[in-house]
Amino acid sequence: MLRLYDYYDSGNGYKVRLLLAQLGIPYEYVEKDIVQGETRTPEFLKLNPNGRIPVVVLEDGTPLAESNAILFYFAESTPYLPADKLGRARALQWLFFEQYSHEPYVAVARFLLRHTEPDDPRRSMLEQRQKGGYAALGVMERHLAENPFLVGGRYSIADIALYAYTHVADQGGFELSSYPCVRAWLARVEAQPGYVRMLLQRPSS
Amino acid sequence: MLRLYDYYDSGNGYKVRLLLAQLGIPYEYVEKDIVQGETRTPEFLKLNPNGRIPVVVLEDGTPLAESNAILFYFAESTPYLPADKLGRARALQWLFFEQYSHEPYVAVARFLLRHTEPDDPRRSMLEQRQKGGYAALGVMERHLAENPFLVGGRYSIADIALYAYTHVADQGGFELSSYPCVRAWLARVEAQPGYVRMLLQRPSS
Repeated sequence: MLRLYDYYDSGNGYKVRLLLAQLGIPYEYVEKDIVQGETRTPEFLKLNPNGRIPVVVLEDGTPLAESNAILFYFAESTPYLPADKLGRARALQWLFFEQYSHEPYVAVARFLLRHTEPDDPRRSMLEQRQKGGYAALGVMERHLAENPFLVGGRYSIADIALYAYTHVADQGGFELSSYPCVRAWLARVEAQPGYVRMLLQRPSS
Repeated sequence: MLRLYDYYDSGNGYKVRLLLAQLGIPYEYVEKDIVQGETRTPEFLKLNPNGRIPVVVLEDGTPLAESNAILFYFAESTPYLPADKLGRARALQWLFFEQYSHEPYVAVARFLLRHTEPDDPRRSMLEQRQKGGYAALGVMERHLAENPFLVGGRYSIADIALYAYTHVADQGGFELSSYPCVRAWLARVEAQPGYVRMLLQRPSS
């Protein structure tokens, strides 16, 4: 059976859990506590030399890392990835936007507020992270004002990737009242068949 | 003809120029000075709402942004992208590694040293950027100790994406003497048919 190395509170891990649920693919869930450094052990580094979750280990033992690469792998030849070349590239455009211009701001702001103490020196970057996050949300708002989903008029892994941290942006101190098109899109994602919620506490073992 | 909006000193733009040269695809080069804010004009934001180069505009007028999405688009069905599903996902794993764990460190350190004055407050993040950059170079070094190229034993867009800023890492203050496998790989990339150098000064118009 497929194995997923993940951390319950990770939006990057949640992307994979959401797609696998929608595809009906079962998997074994293996918790790694990133806050406690459990992804930096020699054993874990054999799965992903970059020391990050999520990692999937395929049936034959092959590991695959990077949440958005994992999404692409499982979505190929399914309705969750456009069938045409330009559509695939457009989905990738949004996936790279997510990892470069959205996650480092929206997810990092959320991490700071959830996993550091108020006097942690890392908190000094919170304002700059929120500023970048609002810029990313603005890009999404303008696009979603004219499109029901991010690519090709239908739900795809581009929506999954951006939904993961956007729908918990409030936990990073973001206020979405000025982003009505983003909020309407969040509701459209949540109405998709097979939708599952993000874990917000550690699953009982 | 294909049009490429780019900035001469951008490694992200260079990735696209290198692949197009190797594929023998001609294009019109349009310079946008990112330091002067030329990618934040209303006209440019119609091409890429995220306000970044590179952007390609296809023959039919369709714009496509994000360097690594552009690489994937042009490499599909060519020898520069693995033909099998796992190989494509592995190439994407490295492309996402590049945008999340390499470029924000190696390229940003280089930008700070090339495009800011020594007393610029942004210089305060140089040390932290270099630390992250060395971590990314370490991941590459360990992988390249056992593999001639990043994916599947042959040159692909994964190599192009990581080569772009790694080969000018010295301009970001990085010292590669402790990374012999990275240096040998740089030489292997430079020996590829159709290899072209990065622009290090503005092309004359």
